[in-house]
Amino acid sequence: MESFRIFVDFPLDEPARDALRAGASGHELIFPAVPAASVLQKAEADPRFSEADVAFGQPDPNAVASSERLRWIQLSTSGFARYDNPEFRELVSERRIPVSNSASVYADACAAHVFAFMLAQARRLPSALKILAASGDAAWKDLRNRCSTLEGEAVLILGYGAIGARLAELLRPFRARVQAYRRRPRGNEAVPVILDADAALAEADHVVNILPDSAETRGFFGEERFARMKRDAVYYNIGRGTTTDQEALLNALASGRLRAAWLDVTDPEPLPADHPLRAQENCHVTPHVAGGHANESLTLVRHFLRNLRLFEREEPLLDRIM
Amino acid sequence: MESFRIFVDFPLDEPARDALRAGASGHELIFPAVPAASVLQKAEADPRFSEADVAFGQPDPNAVASSERLRWIQLSTSGFARYDNPEFRELVSERRIPVSNSASVYADACAAHVFAFMLAQARRLPSALKILAASGDAAWKDLRNRCSTLEGEAVLILGYGAIGARLAELLRPFRARVQAYRRRPRGNEAVPVILDADAALAEADHVVNILPDSAETRGFFGEERFARMKRDAVYYNIGRGTTTDQEALLNALASGRLRAAWLDVTDPEPLPADHPLRAQENCHVTPHVAGGHANESLTLVRHFLRNLRLFEREEPLLDRIM
Repeated sequence: MESFRIFVDFPLDEPARDALRAGASGHELIFPAVPAASVLQKAEADPRFSEADVAFGQPDPNAVASSERLRWIQLSTSGFARYDNPEFRELVSERRIPVSNSASVYADACAAHVFAFMLAQARRLPSALKILAASGDAAWKDLRNRCSTLEGEAVLILGYGAIGARLAELLRPFRARVQAYRRRPRGNEAVPVILDADAALAEADHVVNILPDSAETRGFFGEERFARMKRDAVYYNIGRGTTTDQEALLNALASGRLRAAWLDVTDPEPLPADHPLRAQENCHVTPHVAGGHANESLTLVRHFLRNLRLFEREEPLLDRIM
Repeated sequence: MESFRIFVDFPLDEPARDALRAGASGHELIFPAVPAASVLQKAEADPRFSEADVAFGQPDPNAVASSERLRWIQLSTSGFARYDNPEFRELVSERRIPVSNSASVYADACAAHVFAFMLAQARRLPSALKILAASGDAAWKDLRNRCSTLEGEAVLILGYGAIGARLAELLRPFRARVQAYRRRPRGNEAVPVILDADAALAEADHVVNILPDSAETRGFFGEERFARMKRDAVYYNIGRGTTTDQEALLNALASGRLRAAWLDVTDPEPLPADHPLRAQENCHVTPHVAGGHANESLTLVRHFLRNLRLFEREEPLLDRIM
């Protein structure tokens, strides 16, 4: 079997490093002098990158362009905005460098996270955990009446990939009406796919934004689209912060047009303590942890090793995006 | 068709009252002078109860005992502690008065509520909604790492009835390991049923208490059982507050032995503002709203009307408990 030099630029804990060493024995691992601060962040340029056959992490696009040896890029994230531009696509296409991401590593956790948001909203947990109401009080009756089971409610998922598919699976026992919007339907979606997001927006009780960041999606949710949404709809974003015009969102929340927003991603991150969305009672923000799960770097390594086996045998890679 | 006098003692909103009038046409409806404050509360004694053939609500056990006409009791709740004693059981058994409850009306909402608790805990929402952490911070990594997807985690449901069955259904796509404890297994349970609750307690990551209130279950979770639980397990109670020794729970939470508790029921209700459990950071309390859903009195009426059709035809009632 051919031996590859694998450049790994994201921080691995001990168990993940051990699993990588064991699983990639026969290959050479190269770690940069300064690893990236997290799986989300680009590492600093490292001279040894030029020796690598395989990049596992968040390689610098310029380093990829100047590399003469690189044959495969495995990203340590699900998002890939850093690489999603015509120049980079052309570069890897010309040089026949397949690019795979780690969508399946994060799909379960991301879907569980947005689903936790949806249920917390359905059961009115933010109010219910604060209120001191006695059975029979007007406030108690009102709260109980505003609780829902999601049954029959309309859920629109924008950006239907691995996370959306998993979310649809989690929603099935709840008997919600789920629709998805994706740019390029593939015909294998488990829920009806619509092509006109704007028409569906007007009907949805829950709008789940899982759109990636790109020139097309930046500011996708702005004043106009929030105005199209059903009164009292709930907005969720676990895609990328840049797809939301946060001022428009603030207005939609403050005016009471939207019932609530649940955001795991913002622009910037973290959202500053004095940002007006933080003071908005019906806006709930978590700090980009939707993909989080125990032993994250270990599951990333396992995913990489599954792909390494495929790459060794020249078989199609999992989660290939370019 | 025989015409019944139906005594309805819980508060109905207009749509529910209209639906009851329409669905029970041909029968006579009797409303007490003072309706109960909520579906959970007993109404005051009303002289017209003695004329009733059917009681729909929370009839006073003494009024049932002195009634000469009563032929069927439909409770407006899922819990029935008020009636769960040998005297009452003997009374209705001797007089051949079937008693049905409204378990199926509340099962979906109660299961959704406890499931919202489980997911909020799995995704660490109480901390994640407060923390201001930047990607790469130690606090951020720690939070992400403590988030879970429930996959492979052990869930023990105590008191497996309609709510437990529904919860098991909701949990299925999450690939948790679910076991149930019930006093009298019926053989139709969708998950493995265990007979020794104490052994299972030591293995469970999530302990879901849906036990009813009775002489047997009062204080079921006390110092001894909390001590048996796995370190870092999470305790949920949506059954009845009396089944938990709250001082023992407080100690288990304060000592860090249990990771967290999520309670929809307490003793008393509401839990006073100055109760020490309210000050305990890892204790989360909602005010008995697990069964809440929009148009609750309407779904109660619909359930009653389904049973009324069965009662008219002398067929077996839904949710019959005695």
